[in-house]
Amino acid sequence: MATGLQVFGQPASTDVARVLTCLFEKNLEFDLVRIDTFKKQHKLPEFIKLRDPSGQVTFKHGDKTLVDPRAICKYLCTQFPNQGNKGLYGTGSLERASIEQWLQTEAQKFNPPSSALVFQLAFAPHLNIPQDFAAIAENERKLQQVLNVYDEILSKNEYLAGDEFTLADLSHLPDSQYIVDTERGRKLFTSRKNVARWFDTISRRKAWEQVVKMQMEHPGAFE
Amino acid sequence: MATGLQVFGQPASTDVARVLTCLFEKNLEFDLVRIDTFKKQHKLPEFIKLRDPSGQVTFKHGDKTLVDPRAICKYLCTQFPNQGNKGLYGTGSLERASIEQWLQTEAQKFNPPSSALVFQLAFAPHLNIPQDFAAIAENERKLQQVLNVYDEILSKNEYLAGDEFTLADLSHLPDSQYIVDTERGRKLFTSRKNVARWFDTISRRKAWEQVVKMQMEHPGAFE
Repeated sequence: MATGLQVFGQPASTDVARVLTCLFEKNLEFDLVRIDTFKKQHKLPEFIKLRDPSGQVTFKHGDKTLVDPRAICKYLCTQFPNQGNKGLYGTGSLERASIEQWLQTEAQKFNPPSSALVFQLAFAPHLNIPQDFAAIAENERKLQQVLNVYDEILSKNEYLAGDEFTLADLSHLPDSQYIVDTERGRKLFTSRKNVARWFDTISRRKAWEQVVKMQMEHPGAFE
Repeated sequence: MATGLQVFGQPASTDVARVLTCLFEKNLEFDLVRIDTFKKQHKLPEFIKLRDPSGQVTFKHGDKTLVDPRAICKYLCTQFPNQGNKGLYGTGSLERASIEQWLQTEAQKFNPPSSALVFQLAFAPHLNIPQDFAAIAENERKLQQVLNVYDEILSKNEYLAGDEFTLADLSHLPDSQYIVDTERGRKLFTSRKNVARWFDTISRRKAWEQVVKMQMEHPGAFE
């Protein structure tokens, strides 16, 4: 069955990664369209230059076009309720409301400091951009506050929105993985018992492992 | 300078590889557009499935679209005579006529048996397709006849069309490399002194090494 789903972007982008993870969880068939620009002096895009977190995602389904990764994930769950992971967007209205709230929290509270840390800790050193240590400290402080609340909630629930893995958790994966893969960032997660257990569990999802593999094998080309 | 050159296809395809090599030799800026289809059960396209030699190439420059790899290479050399390798398509009308003739020989005499051997020796084993040993023997015989003539000519010239690397040589690289990378195929080249020296030289071109690297790092997705 050709569903005609198309994703435009590089897997290394955290927004693209959110959408790919959702597509894999939903076990949907799709086309990934990547465009790499080769500059003069034909240097191959270096791996270190590639992992640009700011790359945008574009999603097309027939004549529908979406660019917000969280909206794309919700759309996929609503359009294909019976495919793959059926509980990803909740099974009742109460659970769905909780997932909605968590997606907002992730976008508004977790993402601003975490994406700043992804850039400062994971990308800047490879791009030969001087790290801004004041910005690192400031965003660590903000993320710690957020993760303290998460740790409390995750002491009661296995996952953010309850006892099942949902879009609420999924949307945290791309930033978290980049941060955990740095020495300084890892501690933010490992020093909190329930956050550590939660991240360990969600980062072992087959769908996510697939995306990490794609980020390694198909780094995008950014210059 | 944005030249607006676009290549659609997978580097693992021999036709795409011809065009990429030419673009790198000409030191041109271009976009490579790859489309990977992810099937249900979301298996990552396996490396072994990816190196499909039959993948086609599409090339766009403004409103011009070309699909024949040799025609694309000639077009690039004609449109951008002063970029990168200026001698790739010959510098005089006599040399150009010789290159034209060699491109015909490659397409009509060398390519039929060599692409059959690429499939039988390099791809079939990985695709779990039984090798056709009668077809292998038949195409080896044909390619040997071709390479005997090449060996004679290469005893006089360093390259096929004279003393410079040109499109004549370039167009032989993708099939040759896949064949030389197999145990059985390698002997076809190494057992002929001048062919061996020639392939060794042309396969060390920076532009070609770049394409081989792309074939390894960005295998296409075919199922």
